Amino acid sequence: MSLRLQVLGAPGRDNALFVRADLGHLLQRFLFDCGQDCTAGLPLAEVQAVDYLCFSHLHMDHVGGFDPFFRLTFERPQPITVWGPPDTARILHHRFQGYLWNIPGDSSGTWRVHEVHPGHLHTYRFELPEAFTIAHDEGTRPTQGTLLETEHLSLEALALDHRTPSLAYLLREKPKQHVDVRKLQALGLPSGAWIKQLKEPLPGQRSLEVGGRTYDLQALRAELLTNAPGDSVAYLTDFLLDEAAMRRLVPWLEGVQTMVCESQYRHADLELARKNYHLTSVQAALLAREAGVGELILFHLSDRYASRERSLLLHEAQAIFPNTRFPEHWNLR
Amino acid sequence: MSLRLQVLGAPGRDNALFVRADLGHLLQRFLFDCGQDCTAGLPLAEVQAVDYLCFSHLHMDHVGGFDPFFRLTFERPQPITVWGPPDTARILHHRFQGYLWNIPGDSSGTWRVHEVHPGHLHTYRFELPEAFTIAHDEGTRPTQGTLLETEHLSLEALALDHRTPSLAYLLREKPKQHVDVRKLQALGLPSGAWIKQLKEPLPGQRSLEVGGRTYDLQALRAELLTNAPGDSVAYLTDFLLDEAAMRRLVPWLEGVQTMVCESQYRHADLELARKNYHLTSVQAALLAREAGVGELILFHLSDRYASRERSLLLHEAQAIFPNTRFPEHWNLR
Repeated sequence: MSLRLQVLGAPGRDNALFVRADLGHLLQRFLFDCGQDCTAGLPLAEVQAVDYLCFSHLHMDHVGGFDPFFRLTFERPQPITVWGPPDTARILHHRFQGYLWNIPGDSSGTWRVHEVHPGHLHTYRFELPEAFTIAHDEGTRPTQGTLLETEHLSLEALALDHRTPSLAYLLREKPKQHVDVRKLQALGLPSGAWIKQLKEPLPGQRSLEVGGRTYDLQALRAELLTNAPGDSVAYLTDFLLDEAAMRRLVPWLEGVQTMVCESQYRHADLELARKNYHLTSVQAALLAREAGVGELILFHLSDRYASRERSLLLHEAQAIFPNTRFPEHWNLR
Repeated sequence: MSLRLQVLGAPGRDNALFVRADLGHLLQRFLFDCGQDCTAGLPLAEVQAVDYLCFSHLHMDHVGGFDPFFRLTFERPQPITVWGPPDTARILHHRFQGYLWNIPGDSSGTWRVHEVHPGHLHTYRFELPEAFTIAHDEGTRPTQGTLLETEHLSLEALALDHRTPSLAYLLREKPKQHVDVRKLQALGLPSGAWIKQLKEPLPGQRSLEVGGRTYDLQALRAELLTNAPGDSVAYLTDFLLDEAAMRRLVPWLEGVQTMVCESQYRHADLELARKNYHLTSVQAALLAREAGVGELILFHLSDRYASRERSLLLHEAQAIFPNTRFPEHWNLR
């Protein structure tokens, strides 16, 4: 697995999701939400290296752990990128200014905050050497929800309804090329540096030399390479799952490997879930089943349930979507 | 002891001081600074009941634990009072607005922030039902450093120099009247409700009836009551102790029972202390000796020292002022 997931925080307390994407030549780190005490579960070096901070929304239980995160990241050479719903830049701008700053002359720290609006992103930049006093308006660019698109990864957002916009995120690794080792052996070809050229040919390259013989590149690629789907993870929290949301989410989530989804309530508390724009575990499981995801990880539980009720909450979901579990470190079945 | 002290936080990490004043008819709670993870060491109910939050200054290591504190206190019937140096209201106003607020209609939460300027206080009020958007300017009042003066307590501040104003605080319980039990017995007087009248006579009261006999009130008070000094605690952190500061602090601290004082550095690192406007343990001990305080508690140590060096830091202070110790829960001698 190239995407390594770690749900942060305890059951009934604030939670967040940390994803470490191992892209071979580089690591990229994503933090989804930043509740109180969440980053305390990570090694300092991992927190310091977070590239992308993705807020669902900025209610207290999703931003209350920002200070300890910020303390480890506000000053560093590489910029940090933040996404969130409209108003995120205004609120973070307040947070950046919630200190008496005492800044050494040679320090650097750049925060780029993208607000995800319907149809476009609006970006603001904040700089440590300015004590974060200025919100540099970097303008807008149109998007239908794609936030990041690189050679190896894509990140998308979908706005859901929590009486305020709450963003769901979908991180997908691009399909991976594998070499079929049995075919390699059948053709009597040695492994070697040429395999990298086979996977990533130069522009216009037609042929490839292997062991003194010349092969047609396209034919050899078709013979030896298979495309495996990349890893994928969806992060969904704090929203009302009505029929309209179901219709939007099911195609968006189709084929996703791991769905990390809030489950504030047991199904007996469905009315509470509707009233508070949250989900029950049964609703999360129905969504997972409809979308055909690989597995469902439930998190962000209400603190109203003790340990036994948490287990029942899980079992209710498993009855609908068997491959459902809690984060491993919760030690709850 | 009517003032119960608890230094919060671990050695080499952020620290704060919690003081619980037991005034018989009521408890009052003071929190001095609010570094990361500090209030985690207190029961939730104690944090929720804090009356007074006293900032030395608002550098990150003194305000980085504000979110968890605020989460337990932002909404409650009784107002909360904050003191800090100039700029405190501006910075806290940012902090109050560092959330997406979702406020029930009947909620209340009033924060009164007093900035301590030379010669006056400037007060601002912030209200939860307004999502803290408005800084209500409540004007100024002159003071020479007295922040609070009640029947039972006084709180004073003194501005020190940390390249930015850093406030020292001095909390004093008023002298306590004790009844001399042996003299009571010698006079053959019974104990009873009249003792409360003896201690707190009505305005204009001249006499007191005890056991059917009438006594002259002043004479009886002089005979039976003794004045014991009240408890007192000083909180000093993040400042340069030069000769000018010494001259101001010694008379201010005279006779203080407990002095809680930063000790970032060992004396071998005196140059570092001067450069960073901090203290060595020897400097703290010299100040304690000059002022004739009862005991010295060292806190707010640099993270550059491991356990053995922390002990040496303490011993350096004890050589000058023997009644010096670390907070009990540090388990360091």
